[in-house]
Amino acid sequence: MNYKAVGNILGKVLLAEAGLLLLPLTTAAIYGESLLPYLCTIPLLLVLGAALNALKPAAPHLFAREGFVCVGLSWILMSAFGALPFVFSGDIPSYADALFETVSGFTTTGASILLDPERLSRGCMFWRLFTHWIGGMGVLVFIAAILPVSGDHYIHIMRAEVPGPTVSKLVPRVRKTARILYLIYTGLTLLECILLLLGGMSFYDALLHSFATAGTGGFSTRAESIGAFHSTYIEMVIACFMLLFGCNFNLFYLALLGQGAAALRSEELRVYLGVIVASVVLIAANIAKQYGGMLSAFRYSFFQVLTVLSTTGFSTGDFDAWPELSRWILVLLMFIGGCAGSTGGGMKVSRIVILIKSYFAELKRMIHPTQVKRIWFENHPVADRTVMSVHVFFFVYLLAAGLGVLILSLDGNDLTTNLTASIACISNVGPGLSMVGPTGNYAFFSVLSKMVLCFEMLLGRLELFPMLFLLAPSVWKKR
Amino acid sequence: MNYKAVGNILGKVLLAEAGLLLLPLTTAAIYGESLLPYLCTIPLLLVLGAALNALKPAAPHLFAREGFVCVGLSWILMSAFGALPFVFSGDIPSYADALFETVSGFTTTGASILLDPERLSRGCMFWRLFTHWIGGMGVLVFIAAILPVSGDHYIHIMRAEVPGPTVSKLVPRVRKTARILYLIYTGLTLLECILLLLGGMSFYDALLHSFATAGTGGFSTRAESIGAFHSTYIEMVIACFMLLFGCNFNLFYLALLGQGAAALRSEELRVYLGVIVASVVLIAANIAKQYGGMLSAFRYSFFQVLTVLSTTGFSTGDFDAWPELSRWILVLLMFIGGCAGSTGGGMKVSRIVILIKSYFAELKRMIHPTQVKRIWFENHPVADRTVMSVHVFFFVYLLAAGLGVLILSLDGNDLTTNLTASIACISNVGPGLSMVGPTGNYAFFSVLSKMVLCFEMLLGRLELFPMLFLLAPSVWKKR
Repeated sequence: MNYKAVGNILGKVLLAEAGLLLLPLTTAAIYGESLLPYLCTIPLLLVLGAALNALKPAAPHLFAREGFVCVGLSWILMSAFGALPFVFSGDIPSYADALFETVSGFTTTGASILLDPERLSRGCMFWRLFTHWIGGMGVLVFIAAILPVSGDHYIHIMRAEVPGPTVSKLVPRVRKTARILYLIYTGLTLLECILLLLGGMSFYDALLHSFATAGTGGFSTRAESIGAFHSTYIEMVIACFMLLFGCNFNLFYLALLGQGAAALRSEELRVYLGVIVASVVLIAANIAKQYGGMLSAFRYSFFQVLTVLSTTGFSTGDFDAWPELSRWILVLLMFIGGCAGSTGGGMKVSRIVILIKSYFAELKRMIHPTQVKRIWFENHPVADRTVMSVHVFFFVYLLAAGLGVLILSLDGNDLTTNLTASIACISNVGPGLSMVGPTGNYAFFSVLSKMVLCFEMLLGRLELFPMLFLLAPSVWKKR
Repeated sequence: MNYKAVGNILGKVLLAEAGLLLLPLTTAAIYGESLLPYLCTIPLLLVLGAALNALKPAAPHLFAREGFVCVGLSWILMSAFGALPFVFSGDIPSYADALFETVSGFTTTGASILLDPERLSRGCMFWRLFTHWIGGMGVLVFIAAILPVSGDHYIHIMRAEVPGPTVSKLVPRVRKTARILYLIYTGLTLLECILLLLGGMSFYDALLHSFATAGTGGFSTRAESIGAFHSTYIEMVIACFMLLFGCNFNLFYLALLGQGAAALRSEELRVYLGVIVASVVLIAANIAKQYGGMLSAFRYSFFQVLTVLSTTGFSTGDFDAWPELSRWILVLLMFIGGCAGSTGGGMKVSRIVILIKSYFAELKRMIHPTQVKRIWFENHPVADRTVMSVHVFFFVYLLAAGLGVLILSLDGNDLTTNLTASIACISNVGPGLSMVGPTGNYAFFSVLSKMVLCFEMLLGRLELFPMLFLLAPSVWKKR
């Protein structure tokens, strides 16, 4: 382990967070709120960040394990310090609760411990939803985009922070790739904000909900989430942007290069759209009676399928009160999640496709033992190692979710609550069913359960290994 | 597909079933019940069996796919005909219900649609519990043991019917291996029967519960299952035999050869025992309050952990009323199941061990990308193909359980019922939680749901592929 190189990058992350906190500080200033919560936090970050940044590694090279450890520690540190403004402002007096809310924000989960979010100060509310936007694309990708980072070994960090079974650089240089990603991300966010303004939302609400959609987060300024706006237009705009932010950003880049047709041929995109259509139709048929007709049912089903599949977690209706079939479809969608290279969580559509293809390959191998069957995905053969990694991912993901339920069970709540809380957190969705349903929240869990859920949220957002590396003793050995 | 060879073997299976039905016929005769249910079924089996058996394949060779198809079809046919005595006797008037009960019997699941099993005729009750014993070791293994089957290509059938990620012949000849397995199986069953007789059980109850334990089935002659006998001795005898029948039978063979020490060094056995100890302690501590003390809690915990882990499914208390932690531990144990080469269901301990080891191998590979990490199990390296097969198995197992819940949801019952019914059936446990808990049953499900659960039971008992082969069009092509 190259400790100095890791420390140096962590320093940059803390300095970046200090910079990012200027935005809620400004918001607080505009609305005449106390600036103290930020003025207490920012200097802390500056001092610690500068001290760590001063570490000069003898060898600047980062290998895979330094990349993973950097990412894992960055997200923990960012959350630990990012929780402070909530505590200092008195908006969330308990540090454990504030940490939960911040981890939920950065990991774009959107699970909340707030009983009434509308009582939050404007500055803290801004910070709360802004963490979604930061976490959506990743803070280390952000640093790669703005700082002159040396050398392409930074790809290991991108690899650890950008979701999906494989990471492809859009352009040969990491820094340029990171910039393109952030440009697309910012552009889409602003576009959504404008469209929401046109729907009559206030600038404050429009911007913050655009942050939450872009990161596929799911926090809202309102207790009733998107349902509070009572506007089909707003719901449809947000639903369409949830669909977009659940897509692989490489496709947007292709489209920008004028290769939109090639983007539409993406296998993952087609499966993603197929899952959406099938789920929307099934759920609409299932809930039609409850909403008095297919049109209304389609509206609720379309919004809810997209919010769960993209792992955003907004709500417009109480899907916990839907029939069992719809409820279970939503749970299955939570596992799937968005596409690789999107801001969505879950296992990612591409992994599910590879898993299903590996089943058919296994079946063929058993029928014709002598033939070698390769798996193809997006017109390329998938390496055996990648297929195995995807399978290990699937196993560890479910194991973590299952063991998480074990700890949550100690609180004594019902199985549906525990199970869907665990799934909704590891998949970064936010709301689950029963007590953690769209009308509930996560406040009632014990501190231990909240910490377990925090760990699951980080596991899910960072796709397991950056967090699991931190638990492996051999990672910490000096080279 | 060598249709004639498959037909020939299916004929033998039906003839064997006709022979096996002589036992409930005799029981009915002893207790002076009507013999008609059996006298109507047996000739049907004889005629169809003889007709199929008359098929003479041009080439006697069976390849892997014929082996799988044979096993899949055998179990379906056996269940379809095995359900008839229940219908003809009027004990279970609905054919769908009778089929469910028979599939549940042969697959050693023990999920029942009977509201009051004690009202069954003695002959049908014998048949009901005897199906557990037949299904435990497998009917094709039975045929291999008693008939002069030609050639060692029969190993493909053994491979498809005997549980576990890999099958090792105990001795070079398949027939002798099958005989040894059935001898150990019969010996242990008789030993249990004698010990139960010593505990004051009637011969009828002792024999039938020995059948149900040996097959790790879980049907009982009593509505209250083993709890009806109110005897700690009987509970402990049955618990110990559930432990034994959840072990790999190869170990008993080793012990018979005087290599008991080698058997005790088995990695799978140690993990199996470790899981038992850990679960018993955790649950006992969790339920101590409810049962007024650790001793009583240990008694209930020991029995229940073994009945769920061995996937038998007996009960002595209402574990559905236990605290959430204990309930969830039991659900996790359902997934694990017994050891490979045992009569237990579930995914098997060895598969779980290989999955966990593959996680550590993946972690090491990521930390040291240049090193090749092999997985070792039972002092042998595991082939990459086997590891991949185990992972595909894990994925398809959970996918099938998850999709099963989708169909069960149509009935509108709660999530805990649907989820645990699906898991308890695919893992061949029997009882689940909520409405399918130890005090409930499966009668309330729709016919569609019952058929889905039947499919899951067969999937689980035959370890997926024999059933999945039947659904693959390419399997049915002529060579």
